Amino acid sequence: MSVTQVSIAATAAGAAGTTARTEADALFRPRSIAIIGASSDATRIGGRPIDYTRRGRFAGALYPVNPNQSEIQGIPAWASVTAIPGEVDLALIALPAKAAPQAVDECIAKGVKAIVMFSSGFAEIDAAGRAVQDQMRDRCVNAGVLLLGPNCLGVMNIHVGMMLTFSTILESIWPNPGRVAVVSQSGAVGAYSAALAMERGIGLSQWVATGNEADIDVARCIQWLAEDKATSTIMAYMEGCRDLARLRTAFESAARHRKPVLMLKSGITDTGRSAVAAHTGSDAGDNAGYDALFRATGVYRARSIEEQVDMAYACANGVFPRGPRLSVISISGGVGVLTADAARAAGLELPSPGAETQREIKQLIPFSSPVNPVDVTAQIINDMGLFNRILALVAQESVFDSVIIFLQQLGKVEKHFHGFRDAMLAARCNHPEKLFVLCGGYSAEARTEMEAAGFLIFEDPARAANAVGGLTRLNQGFARFGAETKSKQKET
Amino acid sequence: MSVTQVSIAATAAGAAGTTARTEADALFRPRSIAIIGASSDATRIGGRPIDYTRRGRFAGALYPVNPNQSEIQGIPAWASVTAIPGEVDLALIALPAKAAPQAVDECIAKGVKAIVMFSSGFAEIDAAGRAVQDQMRDRCVNAGVLLLGPNCLGVMNIHVGMMLTFSTILESIWPNPGRVAVVSQSGAVGAYSAALAMERGIGLSQWVATGNEADIDVARCIQWLAEDKATSTIMAYMEGCRDLARLRTAFESAARHRKPVLMLKSGITDTGRSAVAAHTGSDAGDNAGYDALFRATGVYRARSIEEQVDMAYACANGVFPRGPRLSVISISGGVGVLTADAARAAGLELPSPGAETQREIKQLIPFSSPVNPVDVTAQIINDMGLFNRILALVAQESVFDSVIIFLQQLGKVEKHFHGFRDAMLAARCNHPEKLFVLCGGYSAEARTEMEAAGFLIFEDPARAANAVGGLTRLNQGFARFGAETKSKQKET
Repeated sequence: MSVTQVSIAATAAGAAGTTARTEADALFRPRSIAIIGASSDATRIGGRPIDYTRRGRFAGALYPVNPNQSEIQGIPAWASVTAIPGEVDLALIALPAKAAPQAVDECIAKGVKAIVMFSSGFAEIDAAGRAVQDQMRDRCVNAGVLLLGPNCLGVMNIHVGMMLTFSTILESIWPNPGRVAVVSQSGAVGAYSAALAMERGIGLSQWVATGNEADIDVARCIQWLAEDKATSTIMAYMEGCRDLARLRTAFESAARHRKPVLMLKSGITDTGRSAVAAHTGSDAGDNAGYDALFRATGVYRARSIEEQVDMAYACANGVFPRGPRLSVISISGGVGVLTADAARAAGLELPSPGAETQREIKQLIPFSSPVNPVDVTAQIINDMGLFNRILALVAQESVFDSVIIFLQQLGKVEKHFHGFRDAMLAARCNHPEKLFVLCGGYSAEARTEMEAAGFLIFEDPARAANAVGGLTRLNQGFARFGAETKSKQKET
Repeated sequence: MSVTQVSIAATAAGAAGTTARTEADALFRPRSIAIIGASSDATRIGGRPIDYTRRGRFAGALYPVNPNQSEIQGIPAWASVTAIPGEVDLALIALPAKAAPQAVDECIAKGVKAIVMFSSGFAEIDAAGRAVQDQMRDRCVNAGVLLLGPNCLGVMNIHVGMMLTFSTILESIWPNPGRVAVVSQSGAVGAYSAALAMERGIGLSQWVATGNEADIDVARCIQWLAEDKATSTIMAYMEGCRDLARLRTAFESAARHRKPVLMLKSGITDTGRSAVAAHTGSDAGDNAGYDALFRATGVYRARSIEEQVDMAYACANGVFPRGPRLSVISISGGVGVLTADAARAAGLELPSPGAETQREIKQLIPFSSPVNPVDVTAQIINDMGLFNRILALVAQESVFDSVIIFLQQLGKVEKHFHGFRDAMLAARCNHPEKLFVLCGGYSAEARTEMEAAGFLIFEDPARAANAVGGLTRLNQGFARFGAETKSKQKET
């Protein structure tokens, strides 16, 4: 079979796969990868992705392309992408800008299904660069080849160890497979938010940086990830968007699939907007308009990377409160007040428990405040049974959708922790529909055990309350789109 | 000398010391302490303060008082406070509510200068409890004896190991001496914020919980701490204040002494206000009014415990920016944008560096954005000298008061860290008036070294920018009160 025949066959196959699922597979699940501009130096832009992907134990074929070497990092190298004997699903281009267009032509000739372009020096530099970028994009689109980038930090599928990036982040931390996907217009923001997520114990599915977005943009990735079976939560960063209709469709699709989109959108201030223009040349657009879009489509807008990671951590737990009614149980009246303030600011309500429950709490601890927050007082330290009974009483109250429990640093001291652990686990087990959040200090062992049992743990009361509010709003968003789908079905 | 004579002499001495300094010494620097209601059980309310204070190696006299035991935790015990042979500066009352009034009378008879009352069951319970509390307060005030509490978690002077509290926090972490004081209406909030501060490596001077505030309130403690030589930063929590004029005076005094007050004030929402009433019976007051008072007196209002601790950490560094002009240097254009947005929201400005500096940056890294944020691009990873020269150029620009540097996780990888460490230290050393903040991941060793050299380190860009904004506003507050004092001096 000649190169041309392969090209036609591959293009036809690519065109046949018209669903988003098949499209995304070329990028996220390639069976074979060519690295054009491959380097023997594992610290160079063309060397890192080979090194990382080998460390990831990627089982597919890896073809380094370099006309000057017969072997790269222990793998046979090829003089050009067209010289590779087998099919190539994905080609990574790590060449200087001036060599990139020809490489694109060769990839199209070879019949690759997707191109990832690290090369910079295009639309982010000047009009001439933009013109070259547009030409490459047009040729790819016409050939039915996906183009990620240029000027991007690549793509990773953590489940299969495909680590096509030159980010240094993998020198400091290595991701575990999980169900959180990261899509970022800025590779470094995506890499950093992923690193902070990994440090919080969050496992990742896909990671993709869109860079200059000549073809593939954040919206399209979100659309793919909304239908990606390996992904249940989407962390996203964007500076601007050229196609708001596509973005809205992607958000709606994610909501219908009950997949939280945790969006960090920059360019809020005048300085931020200028910086966006200097960085990716995007138009940061109207901030209030984006806010309205996010609200309308159930997208969670994070105000910081940390908040985005908090929410990814909270979503990974899988329990989304049925409604906004929160109970706060606190060993400290003061922390109860702080939590109440933060919860109200996050859109939550703090109804009182039933009269009978109040009466029983007051009977157990006469100096307690039995309403909401429940102040169990320091008396429980000498008789943890009091707390355990109050927890059981509050947990069974149908008036609450979520419970935040503050026990200061008692979770760091084994003898105290053992005094309330079983009651906590029982409450968690008996009320699977409720969200339970522990606020306070916990030892590493206690933390691991309680998180595995389905508790969220936050040190700061305000962050705990904010996460409960966020999960509640996300669930309301899902319900809204679920309900819409339902009523539409009824209409037909 | 009879008991009555001792009492009169001591009271006279107390009355003679009319300055706040001498008053505070009775509470913060007692030479001798009686523990009334002392327990042999180191886990009980009357046992913990003895155990903790012995672990703190307090060098003063400690007199356990318990009519049923001759020795408590290895220390000779006394049948009553009046039976103690030497002078008693401070008496701690850890008795049930009904026994407290008589103990107060005996303390006054003995001539103690300050009473700390753990006992609860007074104003926080009902009107009858408030009446008893008021009577005790009146007797103390008439006798010139300070009364802390009742229903409070005590007082600590970390420098002398005086740990008069029954908080369990000391089971999980032990404070190092330092210059941050904590004053809290809620003992548990104060204990928790102190614990989070300790975990951030912050050393403490004094710690005091005011509880029911029969006599001593948060305002009076801030006034004392404003003049306390061991303290340079004050973390405070309050739910309400009965004497706003005193509070204002205390804040102004702190500002004149260039001591940041980092205030967490709860009761912001309707639910929070109800919870405040249930907790301490305080009136949370008008939130906007408090906001205005804080702004007018240069007090930093923290929105969470975490933010309060962030600011304590930032203040401990000792560098307060001269003005709001921030430079951001980032390896990531995207993080640069996020930082710019957060900085603007925190009241900072991001002017451009001089034309010559811009030209030189562009010469060093052609693809960089040389304005502000400076995007140094990933090119620096392969040639850290480029970053080092840009850092030196930006640091010497007189247009900047602060610099935030984002290098992602490079600080976690030794070979990268060694590539920029010396340039960072040189910049820090050459420009002592400027605030340098590192944003990103750093190894424990790198963090220790850079913090010791005077850098602040934050993982999250928004928290970094917020801290710079906070330090800037605090310094503006100091200047405002310094200027006022100066012009007043000129008038006289």
